Amino acid sequence: MKLSDIGEFGLISEIASASSPGPGRVVGIGDDCAVMPRNDGFDTLVSTDMLVEDVHFILDDIPPELLGWKSASVNISDIAAMGGQPEAAFLSFALPETLSLDYIRAFLDGFRKALDCFGLSLLGGDTTSSPDKLSISVTVIGHCKSGTARLRSGALPGDLVCVTGCLGDSAAGLRIILEGLPRSGPSSELVLRHYRPQPRVNQGLLLSTCPGVHAMMDISDGIASDLVHILKASHLSARIDLGNIPLSGELLSVCSENGWNPLEFALEGGEDYELLFTIDSQSEAGLAIPHTIVGQLFSGESGKVDWLGNGADHTDFQYKGYTHF
Amino acid sequence: MKLSDIGEFGLISEIASASSPGPGRVVGIGDDCAVMPRNDGFDTLVSTDMLVEDVHFILDDIPPELLGWKSASVNISDIAAMGGQPEAAFLSFALPETLSLDYIRAFLDGFRKALDCFGLSLLGGDTTSSPDKLSISVTVIGHCKSGTARLRSGALPGDLVCVTGCLGDSAAGLRIILEGLPRSGPSSELVLRHYRPQPRVNQGLLLSTCPGVHAMMDISDGIASDLVHILKASHLSARIDLGNIPLSGELLSVCSENGWNPLEFALEGGEDYELLFTIDSQSEAGLAIPHTIVGQLFSGESGKVDWLGNGADHTDFQYKGYTHF
Repeated sequence: MKLSDIGEFGLISEIASASSPGPGRVVGIGDDCAVMPRNDGFDTLVSTDMLVEDVHFILDDIPPELLGWKSASVNISDIAAMGGQPEAAFLSFALPETLSLDYIRAFLDGFRKALDCFGLSLLGGDTTSSPDKLSISVTVIGHCKSGTARLRSGALPGDLVCVTGCLGDSAAGLRIILEGLPRSGPSSELVLRHYRPQPRVNQGLLLSTCPGVHAMMDISDGIASDLVHILKASHLSARIDLGNIPLSGELLSVCSENGWNPLEFALEGGEDYELLFTIDSQSEAGLAIPHTIVGQLFSGESGKVDWLGNGADHTDFQYKGYTHF
Repeated sequence: MKLSDIGEFGLISEIASASSPGPGRVVGIGDDCAVMPRNDGFDTLVSTDMLVEDVHFILDDIPPELLGWKSASVNISDIAAMGGQPEAAFLSFALPETLSLDYIRAFLDGFRKALDCFGLSLLGGDTTSSPDKLSISVTVIGHCKSGTARLRSGALPGDLVCVTGCLGDSAAGLRIILEGLPRSGPSSELVLRHYRPQPRVNQGLLLSTCPGVHAMMDISDGIASDLVHILKASHLSARIDLGNIPLSGELLSVCSENGWNPLEFALEGGEDYELLFTIDSQSEAGLAIPHTIVGQLFSGESGKVDWLGNGADHTDFQYKGYTHF
């Protein structure tokens, strides 16, 4: 039997079903971070990710300092997604002999810039040689006040579905890279959005102070796929208004130029690292941070999303749903 | 400039010098674990390691369940080396498509057996595909009472140098594997010592309750190399009595059969995962756990080791010192 017979999510659910998160308020596999309760009024948050050459990045394309930035940021974003304060990073890499010291220094420079930017210390890791490809594994540890981590399972019927920032820029940037299209003006901006994601740490911290925010995660696989995780964990369905999906001027301009549908990037494209959260409508009215309401949650078939088109620009869009395999 | 120009330790020291462990009692790069203080009477301990196919293991040789066991154990051993209680593990792997699901399940089975054996929960990780080799990254989190983590830097002049268990078995087991020698009786025992290391968690916990234990680490690169880390961190020198290095009956038997020098494995060989600790002589006299005194610490040239031979078996042994490169 091959791995592809059960797929990535099949494997994860096998691992999760056999893992034993233990007693109490421990949260294990299935959220952006693990949550480990302490007795000093805080919970420890832990996130870990692996980035592999030719799977997550093309060595010759992404500049090493941006690869360093991105390696740190995608994990920091997981702490942000729980409403936590990131604290420390651990960096392990397997380095092919062909890699120059300058490359590694530039990588470390970018990695540290991301840590400095979000207030983390580099506290450890592992360096080893690699027979072939560069692979990078990062663990980030953070904390939040006891019981305040926003899980995927906390959403309630009637909650509004909101996002920070704009969606789809990163995925369009990736397409520009993969197709070797010219990078200037708005298209270079989209490429940068792909290479240099901005974890929404401050937004996550602010949202975690608002009791009306019930569920949260970061958008790493595209909202169409990620929202379903919240819906299934909370046993809810959603209606999403395609006309309200926030799209940047850069995305609209590049899509118009190339005849691309911006919504495909915004819904199906990954690595935006914006926050997706659900909030009751009363709390939403008083929310101080910039955000966009894109839909609402309902009881009903768990995990189901109705995609509603409501603008002339979008009526021809038939969203088919997202699958990884 | 190439990585080999500065070597592994050069790179680590570059990373360490630019990392910022922050204020307070935080311990960062340079010990077995990072130590992150909390306010509930405990410190959080974090260790992370990467294992890469063809660097750390040969896929066709080590059975998958033992690779799983070993991947967990080498990190658990780092927590043990601080005198901590391991708590949770995070497993990331990059999986080549050629790997069967049975292989992965057997790996996970061995991984979980190690976690169960030492009381850890599997709380997260990352699964990704790999274009080529299997690589595995494990992070283990534990805790110890505030300020009780045994660092490499705490050794004092006059301390006795002690180890748990016997040394060299794992390295001799590796040689048996690499040379394709027959595995039966004592040689199969040595191979198992290489594949199935036993982290000394209980011993580490007991040693951490004894105030006279000043420094501790696990023996992963061989005592000759590892002891120097304690000496340099504590600015001390040591005299080690080669006649007192604990050697197992299996090692002596296999070495005698093959004309090998057992001390070379015991001093230069790695992956024993026994504990190396320093303790004042009064405390040593009352120590309840099995251990062997192998030498003593002195003021003097930091990092220098005098190797003293004291038996007919060892007078011909000229220890040349260990270097990774």
